[in-house]
Amino acid sequence: MKLWGGRFTKETDKKVDEFHSSISFDQRLYRQDILGSMAHARMLGTCGIISQEEADKIIKGLEEVLQDIEEGKVEFDITAEDIHMNIERLLIAKIGDTGKKLHTARSRNDQVALDTRMYLKEEINNTVKLLKELQKVLVELAKEHLDTVMPGYTHLQKAQPVTLAHHLMAYFEMFQRDVERLLDCYRRTDVMPLGSGALAGTTFPIDRQQVARELGFAKISANSLDAVSDRDFVIEFTAAASLIMMHLSRFAEELVLWSSDEFSFVEMDDAYSTGSSIMPQKKNPDVAELVRGKTGRVYGNLVAMLTMMKSLPLAYNKDMQEDKEALFDTIDTVQGCLSVFIPMLKSMRVNRERMLESTRRGFTNATDVADYLVRKGLPFRDAHRVVGQMVLFCLSRGIYLEDLTLEEFRQFSAVIDQDIFEMLSVKSCVERRNVPGGPAREQVLETIKRAEKLIESDYGQ
Amino acid sequence: MKLWGGRFTKETDKKVDEFHSSISFDQRLYRQDILGSMAHARMLGTCGIISQEEADKIIKGLEEVLQDIEEGKVEFDITAEDIHMNIERLLIAKIGDTGKKLHTARSRNDQVALDTRMYLKEEINNTVKLLKELQKVLVELAKEHLDTVMPGYTHLQKAQPVTLAHHLMAYFEMFQRDVERLLDCYRRTDVMPLGSGALAGTTFPIDRQQVARELGFAKISANSLDAVSDRDFVIEFTAAASLIMMHLSRFAEELVLWSSDEFSFVEMDDAYSTGSSIMPQKKNPDVAELVRGKTGRVYGNLVAMLTMMKSLPLAYNKDMQEDKEALFDTIDTVQGCLSVFIPMLKSMRVNRERMLESTRRGFTNATDVADYLVRKGLPFRDAHRVVGQMVLFCLSRGIYLEDLTLEEFRQFSAVIDQDIFEMLSVKSCVERRNVPGGPAREQVLETIKRAEKLIESDYGQ
Amino acid sequence: MKLWGGRFTKETDKKVDEFHSSISFDQRLYRQDILGSMAHARMLGTCGIISQEEADKIIKGLEEVLQDIEEGKVEFDITAEDIHMNIERLLIAKIGDTGKKLHTARSRNDQVALDTRMYLKEEINNTVKLLKELQKVLVELAKEHLDTVMPGYTHLQKAQPVTLAHHLMAYFEMFQRDVERLLDCYRRTDVMPLGSGALAGTTFPIDRQQVARELGFAKISANSLDAVSDRDFVIEFTAAASLIMMHLSRFAEELVLWSSDEFSFVEMDDAYSTGSSIMPQKKNPDVAELVRGKTGRVYGNLVAMLTMMKSLPLAYNKDMQEDKEALFDTIDTVQGCLSVFIPMLKSMRVNRERMLESTRRGFTNATDVADYLVRKGLPFRDAHRVVGQMVLFCLSRGIYLEDLTLEEFRQFSAVIDQDIFEMLSVKSCVERRNVPGGPAREQVLETIKRAEKLIESDYGQ
Amino acid sequence: MKLWGGRFTKETDKKVDEFHSSISFDQRLYRQDILGSMAHARMLGTCGIISQEEADKIIKGLEEVLQDIEEGKVEFDITAEDIHMNIERLLIAKIGDTGKKLHTARSRNDQVALDTRMYLKEEINNTVKLLKELQKVLVELAKEHLDTVMPGYTHLQKAQPVTLAHHLMAYFEMFQRDVERLLDCYRRTDVMPLGSGALAGTTFPIDRQQVARELGFAKISANSLDAVSDRDFVIEFTAAASLIMMHLSRFAEELVLWSSDEFSFVEMDDAYSTGSSIMPQKKNPDVAELVRGKTGRVYGNLVAMLTMMKSLPLAYNKDMQEDKEALFDTIDTVQGCLSVFIPMLKSMRVNRERMLESTRRGFTNATDVADYLVRKGLPFRDAHRVVGQMVLFCLSRGIYLEDLTLEEFRQFSAVIDQDIFEMLSVKSCVERRNVPGGPAREQVLETIKRAEKLIESDYGQ
Repeated sequence: MKLWGGRFTKETDKKVDEFHSSISFDQRLYRQDILGSMAHARMLGTCGIISQEEADKIIKGLEEVLQDIEEGKVEFDITAEDIHMNIERLLIAKIGDTGKKLHTARSRNDQVALDTRMYLKEEINNTVKLLKELQKVLVELAKEHLDTVMPGYTHLQKAQPVTLAHHLMAYFEMFQRDVERLLDCYRRTDVMPLGSGALAGTTFPIDRQQVARELGFAKISANSLDAVSDRDFVIEFTAAASLIMMHLSRFAEELVLWSSDEFSFVEMDDAYSTGSSIMPQKKNPDVAELVRGKTGRVYGNLVAMLTMMKSLPLAYNKDMQEDKEALFDTIDTVQGCLSVFIPMLKSMRVNRERMLESTRRGFTNATDVADYLVRKGLPFRDAHRVVGQMVLFCLSRGIYLEDLTLEEFRQFSAVIDQDIFEMLSVKSCVERRNVPGGPAREQVLETIKRAEKLIESDYGQ
Repeated sequence: MKLWGGRFTKETDKKVDEFHSSISFDQRLYRQDILGSMAHARMLGTCGIISQEEADKIIKGLEEVLQDIEEGKVEFDITAEDIHMNIERLLIAKIGDTGKKLHTARSRNDQVALDTRMYLKEEINNTVKLLKELQKVLVELAKEHLDTVMPGYTHLQKAQPVTLAHHLMAYFEMFQRDVERLLDCYRRTDVMPLGSGALAGTTFPIDRQQVARELGFAKISANSLDAVSDRDFVIEFTAAASLIMMHLSRFAEELVLWSSDEFSFVEMDDAYSTGSSIMPQKKNPDVAELVRGKTGRVYGNLVAMLTMMKSLPLAYNKDMQEDKEALFDTIDTVQGCLSVFIPMLKSMRVNRERMLESTRRGFTNATDVADYLVRKGLPFRDAHRVVGQMVLFCLSRGIYLEDLTLEEFRQFSAVIDQDIFEMLSVKSCVERRNVPGGPAREQVLETIKRAEKLIESDYGQ
Repeated sequence: MKLWGGRFTKETDKKVDEFHSSISFDQRLYRQDILGSMAHARMLGTCGIISQEEADKIIKGLEEVLQDIEEGKVEFDITAEDIHMNIERLLIAKIGDTGKKLHTARSRNDQVALDTRMYLKEEINNTVKLLKELQKVLVELAKEHLDTVMPGYTHLQKAQPVTLAHHLMAYFEMFQRDVERLLDCYRRTDVMPLGSGALAGTTFPIDRQQVARELGFAKISANSLDAVSDRDFVIEFTAAASLIMMHLSRFAEELVLWSSDEFSFVEMDDAYSTGSSIMPQKKNPDVAELVRGKTGRVYGNLVAMLTMMKSLPLAYNKDMQEDKEALFDTIDTVQGCLSVFIPMLKSMRVNRERMLESTRRGFTNATDVADYLVRKGLPFRDAHRVVGQMVLFCLSRGIYLEDLTLEEFRQFSAVIDQDIFEMLSVKSCVERRNVPGGPAREQVLETIKRAEKLIESDYGQ
Repeated sequence: MKLWGGRFTKETDKKVDEFHSSISFDQRLYRQDILGSMAHARMLGTCGIISQEEADKIIKGLEEVLQDIEEGKVEFDITAEDIHMNIERLLIAKIGDTGKKLHTARSRNDQVALDTRMYLKEEINNTVKLLKELQKVLVELAKEHLDTVMPGYTHLQKAQPVTLAHHLMAYFEMFQRDVERLLDCYRRTDVMPLGSGALAGTTFPIDRQQVARELGFAKISANSLDAVSDRDFVIEFTAAASLIMMHLSRFAEELVLWSSDEFSFVEMDDAYSTGSSIMPQKKNPDVAELVRGKTGRVYGNLVAMLTMMKSLPLAYNKDMQEDKEALFDTIDTVQGCLSVFIPMLKSMRVNRERMLESTRRGFTNATDVADYLVRKGLPFRDAHRVVGQMVLFCLSRGIYLEDLTLEEFRQFSAVIDQDIFEMLSVKSCVERRNVPGGPAREQVLETIKRAEKLIESDYGQ
């Protein structure tokens, strides 16, 4: 018989048990569930709602259940629906009727909200750790490649020269914002819901602050209906995770491009590549591709939960059970992707010469020529047009700007002088971009210094 | 060593194996994979690409592998990446070097496309079967409730009287279109891709039509690049599944509403309800809620796959491995929801009296009074205004239109006569709506007749 | 000729102009674009990149352009593509060749990033203002309805008694988190990107901090590639907006339910309802429905932008132009919904008696009876079962718990005494839930006090 | 006063009028609305529900309204809410009280369903026409490039040689399925809903078949509740449109890649490219990028409508008004993208030499060498390993397979003979792939023939 079966005259249909039982996936919360129950029992004892002895007995029983589970001695029962009921049953089996007192002054509704919050807090921290590891690798690589000139692209057309260090530090910034979004989400997750009961609190004189303190929560929830019926913190996390995946997908796309024979900027280590079942020459950047592909998965989880919560009247509805698999899959996916991305990046071989050569053969110095003309007195718009015509001229001859003679240059504009040639080396182009946020060595070093501080900071956690 | 490891100098990183191995979920395709391989081997033999003896040996080996798997004797190997490589290994272990000839003239790229199409064809049929079962239940219930008058709603406001039969048959129509969408998708899935190789066909003189015939495909794919690199048929299925879930979510929402104390139109059987861990009086329509909640899951899978396929250059990319979990979860969710929805609906208790009473107390006959005025000569717009004023008058007194005297009626319009009272019974309102598609008994019987034919039809499958 | 046409030998196709021109929607940014350009020109003057006279001339010219636009004297030109080029053209037309110097040391890529950030900062503040207005209405209503008892629901089944005040304050909490999410997003938006050039900064000795100060930005962007090529702040806003809509959709759903004849808890004012073109009695809660329906729109915008940004290589790509319509529509939708929701809520009539009556007739006091038994010594699980049986007994007789005699009560459990009757009044049930976050008057008053402080706080903006 | 204002005592709030008025976007349906009304009026006359003279007067009035609108003489009125009420008002203004009879036996609910279906039917046909135009261009280009060898890719790594013709015909197949999906959707759209009234048909003796015939519908809807309350046909169209965009995004991605300096396979015409406001050398494939970016927009519309319809109880709800902007935007986006994609593709310059050269330098003939070994007796798996080692050897020397001497070849496998050299030319590799669906000239010609027939077929419309 179900623990809630008092008013029922029939057993639940077996198919229904399977359909709506959540034990197959929410067993992941066993530790949080038990720790939460221990804090709850201790508080019930302190407040005199159950006796001190009963509290102790329950806590000891729960400790044993925890140990049993971690030692793999427990097989969960699908007819007990979820992790909460399973653990309650295990407890009762272990300590008898006293176990039935644990659920006093609480409901599964506030209990599952508690477990989810405890779990997500840990996983936010774990995700932040992985992001910081990735940031560390980026900073290390940036330091190695301060002078590795490469083409900066817009529209996948070569645009202006940058360095690989500068390019990698762009990703540092993105992941930094991702870290900050996670920490903001952490604050909103760090709220203790127990004591909200099924929806309307409880009639017992509980001490919610004690439970919050014991479990390390910053504050308690302010409205019981809200506490059991919103999942916005889970969705906020998934939205932040979607942005992480979006950033990773861009990085992955670039690595796939750069691994192509046409670019040949980098080569993945054999340990992070795979071959083809039929084409013997193939070496595929599978890891980057799969990370890119898994972006959809996290976006999908976000849509799933937004859809699920849409238009649900207060308070708890069964629909909300669907939050868990989407959350777990999001965590697994993001952490899994980061875990392989980091060593893949670390072991990647960079082809410096190819990058430099590619920068040279692409008119990436054209803007510098225009800027030169501006400094010689032309309005920018006119300088732009003049250089456009130079480029057209070069294209028709299959040459580059650096191949023009002074005479040829002067046919486009009489203000041009010998000093034009100093403008043309791509290394000098990079160094001239010496503004905060720019690719010049000095500037990138500055951002690296700041980055190292950010990585070390523990954000007050 | 990987079967494709010839050009590699290092083993794949263990983490990468775990990350991109698909055997944990694509083992579901083992039967399709083996049947496809048997057809391929037979064709290789017929075409003389391998000897007849080799073909027979391979086929026999595959039969044994199939049996081993179905008897639970096989443990799949994560380092063999996927179901295809796992089965090839098992085959080689069983029959030796001849097994290495199976992969002649084929690639995992066309192989996985084949397996997925075979699998989806079966599951489309299974989904259609479930939809038809649901339609049958709807028709049975409709027959029982041809005279069960209930309020038709718009904006969740009572609007005009209908019957429960008419209401249920609206869902019949929705699911009928869902069936048709699935069958259209079936046609596009029923295309045999093997022989497309990795992307560019094969240099061996294979007979693709033979394989198609043996595996029961209607035709072969027309372009090898397309055959291995599109997944639109999977997405089309998921879009069709999303519409099924959309329709189910509406039905589920209505059942939740109708189960509320406020409506009390229906009561779910105890076997399809659950209780509360804390509130002893609760009986919750969990099944309907969970079906509603699972809508998000299928929408999410649709978004996941649309995202994954966006902007992928031809031909196969590793990203596409992500299609499978999304597809499998979609199939499981839709079929799971239908499987519980059907018996839940069948066992539901309908409260006829409550429905009738609710129809009476809600001005659902107001349109009929307006139509009456039109027949007496008023333009519709004026009739509408006059009845609006009657309603306002009734509301101010807490009465209904049927409570007005002839005298009172005539204060609103002099054209009103004794025959107005025939307009007011909700049963007569229903019967007057005797147009094709309308709720009158005769019309609903007509649609039931047509429905029964549709259910019986096998759509040429 | 296009301002960038130097290297081109053909005009853009007219269809292409229409297809990719953004002036039809980005003209909304004209003010930000001009203010940004003025700060840029002033800085160019200060830094000696252009002369002080030139700077002054440009600034004056821009002021006039601004005035012209606001006076409706300007017709934008589709062939000038976007708001940036349109304004540059207008400036050149007004002040001649000096106008061509404005674009020195800047690109449309950093310019559009600047405009979008300035615009979004304002609109975040406007959205926060509207949320606070809504919160104010909630607090006012809560104060009025501290003693308006209503059924609390789970699974849309009556669960335990709460008050309307408590219920409304649940929404206060949700919108409070929405406010906080917007403010977190504001911080990440408040970063000045100008000076990032097309992607790699600029060769001119600009002063980015001066521009940031003049335009009221908290800091400048740290990496030029990142600054022009990410839109995560726009997506973060849309994700926050999606949660606002999710919360509104739940509230709207409840108002639609409560407006139904079956619930009859509230009635919308005629000014916030509409009628039917055919059914004279109808009064529909259209505003709530449409708000609910518009949820999809914002979710859709979120998906649109996540999809668009997926897998884009650095830095700027034309795809990113698609961020603007999605952002503008999100802002318009959220602000539009809030703007009608607020007065609709304010003018809504609450049917106190109906709410109370509904609470009474629904076993919402069953948990209190179980808690009573616990206090008499029964373990909670047993108490739960006993009350379940009482409910079953009542249902079979069509009565409620308050209709039972002491004798009848004692047939279920001998521990029951005369004091059971004090448990049964729903008002007492509410008052007994006197824990932080609970519905008891005292507790709700506490949260109202806190709420009023939160509304007044200006969050340091 | 609103036409439905009878029971109301207050005017609608002005803000509400703006919020829920749809005339700003649904005016696009004016022609369908008027044609539908004319058919309705004619039928009312035929059936004697209004007199023949009244019918004629109404039809004539509607003709004049139509002409007024098309001549730009009409300004729509926001307080009249939508196109239906606007046209009814215009009619009444023109012909007086007879106009008020038009709305007899119909509701806005079935009217808007009719208009939307009429409109979508036309736009499906227009979209199909554009897809066929695109297919025609693909076939023309394929004919030109039957012998243009290029690298086929998987994982963006060169895999095996194909021809540009074969590659383009892969897209032909995708768009062919898109056409078929649209036509399937057309069948489900081609259902006449008028006569379903607000939700429950009508009490007037109408002839729905007459209206269907006059308006060219294949059949009438079978259930009135369903007819006014489902929008699955709109969502199905948007899902089909999402797949079109998915396919276009892949094509666009390839064109962006191929336009890069690194690939240099194609060059867009100046008329289909744009420049940079700052970098004079830039020529960007903006059209392809923007098409790729607009993919998100259509996906977003799909999500918007799926979300909107989720959990809506029958029958019409105001939420459903949100279907129109999403539908219109989807149509505009898909047709707009196709309209620019077609001439862009047509005017694109192909760099044959570069494609050939790229194929040669990339081990794309490795599979052929493995197949050669198989024909010499090696099992495929062993052949694969041997060629893998050859590739590794070549890579270490910076050479390709065609650079090996027979002696070197034989060090890897003794079965290799002089005839190995016939395997190595990429042109021969293509020709050897002479299986149905393969890239060999003969096979591609076959698919072109079939394609031309498909384009000409009118699919029975």
